[in-house]
Amino acid sequence: MDALGRHLLLELEDCEEGILNDLEGLREAMLAAATEAGATVMGNSFHRFSPQGVSGVVVIAESHLTIHTWPEYAYAAADIFTCGTTVEPVKAAEVLVERLGARNHEITEIRRGTRITERVRSG
Amino acid sequence: MDALGRHLLLELEDCEEGILNDLEGLREAMLAAATEAGATVMGNSFHRFSPQGVSGVVVIAESHLTIHTWPEYAYAAADIFTCGTTVEPVKAAEVLVERLGARNHEITEIRRGTRITERVRSG
Repeated sequence: MDALGRHLLLELEDCEEGILNDLEGLREAMLAAATEAGATVMGNSFHRFSPQGVSGVVVIAESHLTIHTWPEYAYAAADIFTCGTTVEPVKAAEVLVERLGARNHEITEIRRGTRITERVRSG
Repeated sequence: MDALGRHLLLELEDCEEGILNDLEGLREAMLAAATEAGATVMGNSFHRFSPQGVSGVVVIAESHLTIHTWPEYAYAAADIFTCGTTVEPVKAAEVLVERLGARNHEITEIRRGTRITERVRSG
């Protein structure tokens, strides 16, 4: 164990604009991402803003997924935070890239709690 | 505008262990953090796990706050993601450090959507 959590930060660029304002479409995409990753969904909360943009969170037993969209820039920022070894966050990322039709994307992985696991290892 | 969002990743270490299993205490701390930062709270969802640990999200009009706790390590991972210029995420971070009694902490700021804002600037 080299970290307590894996945290993927997704920059989703040049997305299909229709989906970025589609609250139910985004909820479905995020739930599909969680399920495809092998996560257990505990709840979700999505909000649409005026004049545009959607924010959503999916709470999973293994942590969370979040998304915020900027339709005016064809852009979305998503986060996939997982703990444990049974969930595959990269699969969730792949689902979001595909469902949002992101023609460009960047994924940064941050490992969380590494100073704790180092401390545990060194006794 | 050099980014669409500011995202603070908080590593909260050597916290007071009582709070890390206290769902209502954590919800109150997270809502206080959001309010102190000047955010508009849209909703929240918190879950307590067996045998220990709490996960929680607060959806704000300006994005989100999340927290996951590992009481067995006196550790919590929190995220504060804000957009716009009216919210001060650092204030939210200060509230969480104080409310959780974190004797050590680390804050990393990631700017989100910077490739979009660069593109906008360069026309």
